[in-house]
Amino acid sequence: MALTDPSRPTDVALLTDLYELTMAQGLWEHGKLEERDCFTAFYRDHPFGSAYAVMCGTAELADLVENTRFTSEDIDYLASLKAPAGGALFKPGFLEYLRDFRMHVDIDAVPEGELVFAREPMVRVMGPALECQMLETALLNTINFQTLVATKTARVVGAAKGRPVAEFGLRRAQGPDGGMAVARASYVAGCASTSNVLAGRKYGIPVSGTHAHSWVMSFETELEAFRAFAATSPNNCTLLIDTYDVREGVENAITVAHEMEARGERLAGIRIDSGDLARLSKYVRGRFDEEGLEYVKIVVSNDLDEYTIQSLLDQGAPIDSFGVGTKLATCYDQPALGGVYKLAARRDPGDAAWTPVMKLSEQPYKRTIPGVQQVRRYFDDAGSPVCDMIYDEAYVEGAGDARGTTLVAVNDAALVTSVAGMEYRELLEPVVRDGHAVAPREPLTAARERCASALAALDPEYKRFLYPQSYIVGMEAGLARVRDELVRERMNAAASPMPWKAPK
Amino acid sequence: MALTDPSRPTDVALLTDLYELTMAQGLWEHGKLEERDCFTAFYRDHPFGSAYAVMCGTAELADLVENTRFTSEDIDYLASLKAPAGGALFKPGFLEYLRDFRMHVDIDAVPEGELVFAREPMVRVMGPALECQMLETALLNTINFQTLVATKTARVVGAAKGRPVAEFGLRRAQGPDGGMAVARASYVAGCASTSNVLAGRKYGIPVSGTHAHSWVMSFETELEAFRAFAATSPNNCTLLIDTYDVREGVENAITVAHEMEARGERLAGIRIDSGDLARLSKYVRGRFDEEGLEYVKIVVSNDLDEYTIQSLLDQGAPIDSFGVGTKLATCYDQPALGGVYKLAARRDPGDAAWTPVMKLSEQPYKRTIPGVQQVRRYFDDAGSPVCDMIYDEAYVEGAGDARGTTLVAVNDAALVTSVAGMEYRELLEPVVRDGHAVAPREPLTAARERCASALAALDPEYKRFLYPQSYIVGMEAGLARVRDELVRERMNAAASPMPWKAPK
Repeated sequence: MALTDPSRPTDVALLTDLYELTMAQGLWEHGKLEERDCFTAFYRDHPFGSAYAVMCGTAELADLVENTRFTSEDIDYLASLKAPAGGALFKPGFLEYLRDFRMHVDIDAVPEGELVFAREPMVRVMGPALECQMLETALLNTINFQTLVATKTARVVGAAKGRPVAEFGLRRAQGPDGGMAVARASYVAGCASTSNVLAGRKYGIPVSGTHAHSWVMSFETELEAFRAFAATSPNNCTLLIDTYDVREGVENAITVAHEMEARGERLAGIRIDSGDLARLSKYVRGRFDEEGLEYVKIVVSNDLDEYTIQSLLDQGAPIDSFGVGTKLATCYDQPALGGVYKLAARRDPGDAAWTPVMKLSEQPYKRTIPGVQQVRRYFDDAGSPVCDMIYDEAYVEGAGDARGTTLVAVNDAALVTSVAGMEYRELLEPVVRDGHAVAPREPLTAARERCASALAALDPEYKRFLYPQSYIVGMEAGLARVRDELVRERMNAAASPMPWKAPK
Repeated sequence: MALTDPSRPTDVALLTDLYELTMAQGLWEHGKLEERDCFTAFYRDHPFGSAYAVMCGTAELADLVENTRFTSEDIDYLASLKAPAGGALFKPGFLEYLRDFRMHVDIDAVPEGELVFAREPMVRVMGPALECQMLETALLNTINFQTLVATKTARVVGAAKGRPVAEFGLRRAQGPDGGMAVARASYVAGCASTSNVLAGRKYGIPVSGTHAHSWVMSFETELEAFRAFAATSPNNCTLLIDTYDVREGVENAITVAHEMEARGERLAGIRIDSGDLARLSKYVRGRFDEEGLEYVKIVVSNDLDEYTIQSLLDQGAPIDSFGVGTKLATCYDQPALGGVYKLAARRDPGDAAWTPVMKLSEQPYKRTIPGVQQVRRYFDDAGSPVCDMIYDEAYVEGAGDARGTTLVAVNDAALVTSVAGMEYRELLEPVVRDGHAVAPREPLTAARERCASALAALDPEYKRFLYPQSYIVGMEAGLARVRDELVRERMNAAASPMPWKAPK
């Protein structure tokens, strides 16, 4: 919300980790303003045991860049900060520099709704080192959570097999923006509606809702409460039948349904929010059908996720739509994507070419991929994606095209394969150039359609919940060689003897 | 963020579930504007296997109430919504009513930083039924997540046994507000600082930070990078030593530490962000001590939570402070509190007294507690809390004081005990009267001190991680009788025959 509201640009600049600003001061002080960096954002593991993720948040990156301005109040606050060992944390010259600070970065990113896979770049930021660094926290804050929610949603919506899924997690979300991000990302990835009215107004997402238990408790009897709700909302009448007892609730709903019929109206549905939803929904369906009320729909809710929905439908539960809240809004079984933002290439002012760099880490698993990365997605004859190849756009070997056709798998070096002759498409598209959006924002429905197409084209073995097939992500052979050389260089440099332990 | 920014009051009114507004329309249409409700917010289970929670978010409730206004744009948006079966969702008369809508509720709540326990009221809202209902979503959004984070923080800070814990989860939080809420709640519950600069400015929380791996990668060598950081931040110099190899990193840090000493400066510390933190911290401590650099502090990070911190200290790891991000900001092992907001009493315009009401549900576990609830906390002679008693402020039996001294445990009906003669204090305090804050906001440090005192007074058996002792929460015997009667009444009414199944 804050990121996209033009009336509040000032929040964006300070919505960052302190170390981004102290590092920026360091770069400024060391005369590194002309140095260029290339960072990529990616995640290391698919969330929820999934084999893919759904990119989301891309559309908000341009706002983030355009709104990074420091107000006088921001500067005053920074000037007031003391260093732990005494003295001011920030130097007056640096604060003056921030006063007219504007971003000039270029950003390329995977469009919203597109599928992404572990370890490949979702976003690439190139430009002055100081600016690239300063963007880290807010950029990750923007894409990490929305991508996580969109991925969870794709699973939940997939489990519902075409039945509408309504998102209503606002009350359990991490504050207002958390709720807004959930509504937005879950709509991109296939939810039919949200309960969040502000998200409806702001993003044009359909809004939906029934009533709460408290409505029933506000009347002397449940029947009276149902009659009152039908009277006030005849065109939007879904009755919650489990406030006291579902068997009683369904009879009261039947009474009201017949009364509505007599007035030329129709009871839209009933909702069950507790108990054994498989058994209760069958019972309720049976009673309505006996009464000739086959058209009344059954909506269920109560801590649903992809697994409970799959189980309910496997049991033949006659459910027409699902309301999903907590488990979607918080991504309950894995509430963080773990997306990171890493330096991948540098260029000093005098350099003609980019120098690929990588982080090695104590954990080989945390080693990054170097280079000015782009991703090429390859498709089979049916239009289904089969593998992604990361290559270095800035890498030139000999005179020819460096974008070879030999792929070396990122996570399984034994897999080396050729992609020669296959159809492909580049994944990273320009979003920001020289600090400005390259195009107006697309409507959210465009991202939603992109997601639906991408999921439809993905072969089912990647979409199952239990042991999904791993999608192949590889490096172009030239890039893989560069990475190997960087690892070898570093290994030679750091040859310290074993054992190494704390001195006794 | 949105909730507390006076420049953006309009967002609050629509930041709600659609059904709150359709129910409000129903109450308006049925002439129930004079009906009074009493709602309570509570949670059913302690998060993280804890025996308590730390209340947080209370201070933002008054802003929520005062800022619930509908702008013309809000009204236009609501007017544009169509009902599923056709026609407008909202009636023109109701929308006119919303145009000048103001809240008049009274709110009593547990102060921030105080301990709360499962099933007892954290917040009580009384007033016009329509207003009480309309507050539900935003109120839960405000207290659920902050209480969850504060509770997680109390555990993490407890595990650190006095060593400072810095919060730096912004990049993994659910959008900007998620990050702000995390910084705020974790400071209340004992974190020493946050990395979030905006939270620092807005809430006066100390900010802290070191540098990233990318700083090291921005220079030709690690030593050069360390020297540059020491030069730019001599008074705030904590070096991240694991970009390439910790053994190499510590030697480079030692070189820089000696150079700083020669200039009359001191290396504040080093940070390790990967690998086996127990082993690495011992190795690093040993090397620094050998070099006469006993004052250099060791900071660690990398997916820490209360369990990893406890384990590190159990192994004797010489760690001076902890940086905690993802697992705190997302409350990774239980990302939702599951707090609910339930109708507990009603009063029709003609009634002299409140009528307690309860929801029964298919699941006995989901049965609520009726009445205009207040909580009395009882203390032993040492000032440690021993039990909480929920009583109905509006309940009068005979002529005497209805606030008896016999307690019937909420979760274990077999436990009936007397609290006669014990010291006590009421937990719910006035926050809002007739729609307005009763007092200016207290400084955040006051909530922080309240939390520290409350945790210090709580006996250790409630604070251990493994099978903590359950704290006793009970109902005053008169309230327990009223609840039993409501259950019995309903049971008699709903006596449908077994078996009940779907017709074949």
